[in-house]
Amino acid sequence: MRRDIRITDIRITPIAFRDGPLLNAAGIHEPWALRAILEFETSDGRIGISETYGDAPMLAVLAQARPVIVGLSPFDLNVMEERVRATVRPVAGAVEFTLAPGSHSAKNAAKVISAFEVAMLDLQGQIVGAPVVDLLGGAVRDRVPYSAYLFFKYAEHHGKPYAPDAWGEGLSPAQIVEQARRMIGLYGFRSIKLKGGVFEPAHEIACIRALSEAFPGMPLRLDPNANWSLQTSIAAAPELDELLEYYEDPTPGLEGMAELARHTRLPLATNMVVTTFDEFRRGVALGSVKVVLSDHHYWGGLRATRELARMCEVWGLGISMHSNSHLGISLMAMTHVAASVSNLGYACDTHYPWQEEEVIAGGRVAFDEGAVRLPASPGLGVQLDREALARLHEQYLACGVRQRDDLAQMRKYQPDFAGTSPRF
Amino acid sequence: MRRDIRITDIRITPIAFRDGPLLNAAGIHEPWALRAILEFETSDGRIGISETYGDAPMLAVLAQARPVIVGLSPFDLNVMEERVRATVRPVAGAVEFTLAPGSHSAKNAAKVISAFEVAMLDLQGQIVGAPVVDLLGGAVRDRVPYSAYLFFKYAEHHGKPYAPDAWGEGLSPAQIVEQARRMIGLYGFRSIKLKGGVFEPAHEIACIRALSEAFPGMPLRLDPNANWSLQTSIAAAPELDELLEYYEDPTPGLEGMAELARHTRLPLATNMVVTTFDEFRRGVALGSVKVVLSDHHYWGGLRATRELARMCEVWGLGISMHSNSHLGISLMAMTHVAASVSNLGYACDTHYPWQEEEVIAGGRVAFDEGAVRLPASPGLGVQLDREALARLHEQYLACGVRQRDDLAQMRKYQPDFAGTSPRF
Repeated sequence: MRRDIRITDIRITPIAFRDGPLLNAAGIHEPWALRAILEFETSDGRIGISETYGDAPMLAVLAQARPVIVGLSPFDLNVMEERVRATVRPVAGAVEFTLAPGSHSAKNAAKVISAFEVAMLDLQGQIVGAPVVDLLGGAVRDRVPYSAYLFFKYAEHHGKPYAPDAWGEGLSPAQIVEQARRMIGLYGFRSIKLKGGVFEPAHEIACIRALSEAFPGMPLRLDPNANWSLQTSIAAAPELDELLEYYEDPTPGLEGMAELARHTRLPLATNMVVTTFDEFRRGVALGSVKVVLSDHHYWGGLRATRELARMCEVWGLGISMHSNSHLGISLMAMTHVAASVSNLGYACDTHYPWQEEEVIAGGRVAFDEGAVRLPASPGLGVQLDREALARLHEQYLACGVRQRDDLAQMRKYQPDFAGTSPRF
Repeated sequence: MRRDIRITDIRITPIAFRDGPLLNAAGIHEPWALRAILEFETSDGRIGISETYGDAPMLAVLAQARPVIVGLSPFDLNVMEERVRATVRPVAGAVEFTLAPGSHSAKNAAKVISAFEVAMLDLQGQIVGAPVVDLLGGAVRDRVPYSAYLFFKYAEHHGKPYAPDAWGEGLSPAQIVEQARRMIGLYGFRSIKLKGGVFEPAHEIACIRALSEAFPGMPLRLDPNANWSLQTSIAAAPELDELLEYYEDPTPGLEGMAELARHTRLPLATNMVVTTFDEFRRGVALGSVKVVLSDHHYWGGLRATRELARMCEVWGLGISMHSNSHLGISLMAMTHVAASVSNLGYACDTHYPWQEEEVIAGGRVAFDEGAVRLPASPGLGVQLDREALARLHEQYLACGVRQRDDLAQMRKYQPDFAGTSPRF
């Protein structure tokens, strides 16, 4: 009997996978990126899966919340949310990585709710024989477009922990154009985002201009990662006016973005100043942004992402999607929710091309003209490759990284790297 | 195969049922209340049901939207919403009944979406073997509390179309207290709402005072139906301060309510000035109200009601539920969604005690200590009584009412009744 199915156990496996030497405002990616893979077991022998952050504080809050979920039905999403909110407490020693909303401890409950919700929706879908998107009201599109997410990067990591990736160095405009060509050739993306905030604004604008010339008509976005002062952001706006689809998080703070909005006709986008519903409330009062980049991992799940989308519709904002380094389970969760949102008007961000490894059966998810096709199979439509999971967990145990620290990593290359923000 | 199930036909049956001579700001209820019963048939022989407004303009917009839904899966809620929004057009001759948000033509798409969504969720529940609440994230409570909804009323209708109801006259404080005693005796309600806006404010306040003395500690609400001027509402507030749980729609308009809010510490509630997401946006900017009375029939469905609840949480507003004259299908839809909303902090309104007839199998829904218990059976958990449906449709054909008109009805009693608003 369907209503008797209960969650009997939750397994949380931290994993590490190779990640490129990608530069950002805080520093540079470490050689290993962390995630946690959740497996929800049910009384009828099913396993629902989910992928989320794998840093030590996140593992601690997942462990706090784990016991209150055992015994629930996979359909008890609302009770799960109530219990997680009542259970999650601050974790000692948590370090917040300013640039990554997923590391903010104020979002602990939302992050845990999201991780649990995805696994429970995977189970619901398996139980009722429906893809997760059908549990979100059904698909309004059968393919979800993603964008080519470009990074300034070095050719290889400090200390050469493993063989260099195939992408080479990406520092000059010509190298960034070459990176885009390669990524578009492999994946078919039809819009481009450049993660900036790394070099002098003039250099980054030159890269955008080179991309615009190399890919005429292709929507372009620049994300200076809140590393430009308000003054710099205002000064750069006219040069970017004809080049960008949106201007993402050039400068810090809801007030800073609101002030910038008064000086440019470029739509401002964010995944840094509107990262919770409370910030949404304050952001619309201030007029800070025109596009919110959702991320189910820290907004509180796929249902919360849909609620955010409705709010964006009501306040006349656009909605797109942010990503962190992730594997295929997250990609499929992102694809299911994005397929259900009518007003999702932009290609979503994904770090997926920067990952080589996978934890799902069948290997890496295929892209078709820059889009991921919705699977028709029940639940998320992907299963764990247990050998891969074991291997990536071994890497976690061996790699020594327990909490993302792009700043410390950068100081291995530049011992005097200050990491002050905004830098430009 | 579940994914192959399609909606093959939609039947829309207008019905009329006996309704009491209940007074409100606009006038008085006619002897017959109208609803429409929707039946969605599927390719595998199921029937999903829904109940909504039955006035002529609503029947016309339902008929407009009907063809675009045939062929969809019951899981295609998001596509259904897109198609209804693209299809529904203004209806010639629609008369808006100011006091009833359900009659506003600007809400046509939301009203149709709601009517369709409930029938599709009923089908989904039947198909997957889950109650509708499980498709909304599951129940956080197994019983949904309703309030005793008191009305000033005459003993019988003008022209005596049928035998008088059992409630008798309800005009004086003593009669209102007696009405409350009877209703609470029959249903077990634990909070009381009085629909006001009918008599001089002093008389209505005297009724509230009498209720407060007769039912010490019982939460009380007064709803003057926007029939008090701002000045009258401000003047009455201190007298109501210690008596009311909330002060519902005393005065018209978002601005009027916002101004009143600056003059009273009573929480202001509404189902008249915040009735759409756009009004929510304007209302929170103005600080108009503290409690929103949701109503899935005009907010756009059960999912939209949950989205509204999330917005209320984000903006620090309370959420409760409004009702119109309705039968058991609506009552069960209200109960499923209310059971899923964590922050629903007030007993919901219902006109149900004022109805004697039913359209569902098994007759009238039972109340237990003022609450409706969630059914465990799949879908909404109620089925049509086809004999009752045929009888109520015959009444519709015979009764002559095609569009609610409380003002015209009132003029049968008082030919010089002006119906100006606000009257006091």
